[in-house]
Amino acid sequence: MVDIHSKYLEQAVEALGSLPGIGKRTALRLALHLLDKDLVEVENLANAMVLLKQHVRYCVSCNNISDRETCAICENPLRDHATICLVENIRDVLAIENTHVYRGVYHVLGGVISPIEGIGPNDLSIELLIQRLQKEEINEIIFALPATVEGDTTGFYIFRKIAPFNVKASILARGIAVGDNLEYTDEISLSRSIQQRLPYSIETELNK
Amino acid sequence: MVDIHSKYLEQAVEALGSLPGIGKRTALRLALHLLDKDLVEVENLANAMVLLKQHVRYCVSCNNISDRETCAICENPLRDHATICLVENIRDVLAIENTHVYRGVYHVLGGVISPIEGIGPNDLSIELLIQRLQKEEINEIIFALPATVEGDTTGFYIFRKIAPFNVKASILARGIAVGDNLEYTDEISLSRSIQQRLPYSIETELNK
Repeated sequence: MVDIHSKYLEQAVEALGSLPGIGKRTALRLALHLLDKDLVEVENLANAMVLLKQHVRYCVSCNNISDRETCAICENPLRDHATICLVENIRDVLAIENTHVYRGVYHVLGGVISPIEGIGPNDLSIELLIQRLQKEEINEIIFALPATVEGDTTGFYIFRKIAPFNVKASILARGIAVGDNLEYTDEISLSRSIQQRLPYSIETELNK
Repeated sequence: MVDIHSKYLEQAVEALGSLPGIGKRTALRLALHLLDKDLVEVENLANAMVLLKQHVRYCVSCNNISDRETCAICENPLRDHATICLVENIRDVLAIENTHVYRGVYHVLGGVISPIEGIGPNDLSIELLIQRLQKEEINEIIFALPATVEGDTTGFYIFRKIAPFNVKASILARGIAVGDNLEYTDEISLSRSIQQRLPYSIETELNK
């Protein structure tokens, strides 16, 4: 990158460029956009980021983000606290919440086991999950981890860890995505969807 | 977007989502990334943005960004101050500086005339350019505006405005991009490159 003749612009580009998925070029575009904004708008954005970091913490029960000690989902008496959905991260919580079909609670691992990225079991909130199983009355754990090698490995590791507890384990169905054409579906998903085929009934179709 | 159960996260996502090219989903990803960072890193980013807005201003001569009243290019005595390269924005200055072939100065319009976006001639620094022509000794203006309808319109408007002044006007060559295959070049660029063909000489080839 050529000299941009402004120390402040350079610093802002460098700081913005440290964000994931934002390269030097995008950082420059964002910085120049900020220049066009009012000072108060830029200050609001800056404050929002610092406040976020200062005030948001992780739920002591499920490791979800929260403004308080316990997250809103864990505190909600209307949810089924005997069913735990095990997810990789907070984005997965939001994705599942978005479906409006799940009424249980969550457990956020904070990642999946990945030797390449140097993430081992101890970097995840697995111990916290074991503690929940010891203390709380849990009926079922739904493994909603990514359908990748890392997700499967992590799932298997945790499945063995929870074996001593009397808890039902289930895993998200895998198959062809709703709206997908069969010809464009990858072979593994398609073969899974054949192996795990369901009885055809009016009810299944109406629940689509 | 589903309720994310954290006022601070919501505010940060909204603020980040107001940046150009950053949708709700990316804003959420960025906000969650900030959560993983140290507070001091987030504060540095926030400060860099506010300092940028507080301290960077526009060169009184060419409208380029600058930490001082006049930008480093306009202040550089080694540059050719009789040649002005007319560009749309600061990114174009950086792109041309990156080539290291231009030794003149710039004039940054701050946009191009676009009725659809409500940008008229008065929103651009055209008056400032006229003042430069009146006060300074300018030999040549190089029109380096985007090769779009808006860029051409703006160029033509300014070309007529500067007609009373004894100044040479030139425009960037348009043609096939270096490294492009002819079969993938759009027809307009290809026809331009035929119409504006150059005499073939050893010198031209060596300057490539």
